[in-house]
Amino acid sequence: MEDKMVPNIVVGRLPLYLRTLQLMNQEGRRVTSSQELGERLGISAAQIRKDLSQFGEFGKQGTGYNIDFLTDKLRHILHVFKVWDVAVVGIGDVGHALARYQGFANRGFRIVLLFDNSPAKVGKLVDNFIIQDLSSMVAQIRGAGVQIAMLSVPVDQAQVVTNQLVEAGVKSILNYAPINITVPSGVRVQYIDPVLHLQRMTYYLE
Amino acid sequence: MEDKMVPNIVVGRLPLYLRTLQLMNQEGRRVTSSQELGERLGISAAQIRKDLSQFGEFGKQGTGYNIDFLTDKLRHILHVFKVWDVAVVGIGDVGHALARYQGFANRGFRIVLLFDNSPAKVGKLVDNFIIQDLSSMVAQIRGAGVQIAMLSVPVDQAQVVTNQLVEAGVKSILNYAPINITVPSGVRVQYIDPVLHLQRMTYYLE
Repeated sequence: MEDKMVPNIVVGRLPLYLRTLQLMNQEGRRVTSSQELGERLGISAAQIRKDLSQFGEFGKQGTGYNIDFLTDKLRHILHVFKVWDVAVVGIGDVGHALARYQGFANRGFRIVLLFDNSPAKVGKLVDNFIIQDLSSMVAQIRGAGVQIAMLSVPVDQAQVVTNQLVEAGVKSILNYAPINITVPSGVRVQYIDPVLHLQRMTYYLE
Repeated sequence: MEDKMVPNIVVGRLPLYLRTLQLMNQEGRRVTSSQELGERLGISAAQIRKDLSQFGEFGKQGTGYNIDFLTDKLRHILHVFKVWDVAVVGIGDVGHALARYQGFANRGFRIVLLFDNSPAKVGKLVDNFIIQDLSSMVAQIRGAGVQIAMLSVPVDQAQVVTNQLVEAGVKSILNYAPINITVPSGVRVQYIDPVLHLQRMTYYLE
């Protein structure tokens, strides 16, 4: 209930906290503080305490945060204690890299379906997964109950494929095509476009 | 001068406006409005007018924005009227996809240098570029005056390679390794980690 009140910008910082805690855990660490988290992330300690306080009382004054405990809490809050099945649509270079990406492990996601519309690609294996024909996508995603897709198709196909993903029941789309897509309410989109990040930095370069 | 006063969050929206204007231009459009831009981007028209007004007077009341004119202005503001040379460090699947990515064209960037430390990769071609040995990176980047790098090395090498990039004179790093890196002031870092975006959406999924 109360979670509905949490601003989206706060939700957006929680995965950063979780990633940092998981890295600390791999380093063999047991306890951290909002100060240390803040230094690693370039976010103020006060902001981190305020963000986390929206979800409960996770640390003790003076003793900091237990890393395992806070990791578990954040995994629950972000719904990544379970592993979500993900479809990748468009198996060019980017889709191929996503299909083979090792960084999903232990973070709540696994690729289970790959789609492309190229006869040269359909039927081929990427790691253990067969690239399947885009024409079968809606039925397969619906049948498997997959709710998350990563979209790496050409710009001119992005909206059409998005409409099909929505029809198939997908609720979350991570769009790698450098174009804004339109979805009905109840479906969320996030964007990855390296040029947006690069231009944000060249602004400060001479 | 006054540009230094513009909040980073405003700077971060300018590339979105530029991308949308360039797509409108490809559609053969000549004029747009803050309303239309806002609808395409999910940003309020008032916010867009306020953001742009920080840099000058780009539209006329009632007639909207000339797309070519505003595109040119934004390309100047973001310093992407020129084409920036970019190095890619770490040619695994992600680095390979970046090296071949078609989305940089006409947006201010071109890949010119590729580096990896694997003997099996060094000397191989990706498109027209030879993968060069990481040990030569500092000298080559410095020699070429490259100021922008995309980092797609494993997590445990990210900080070491970052230190070398800084030593070589790189001022902007787009980091694909899922770990926060530390840089001295005067160097900027942006991050791309698909899991952060996915977790930001699973928060809202049951």
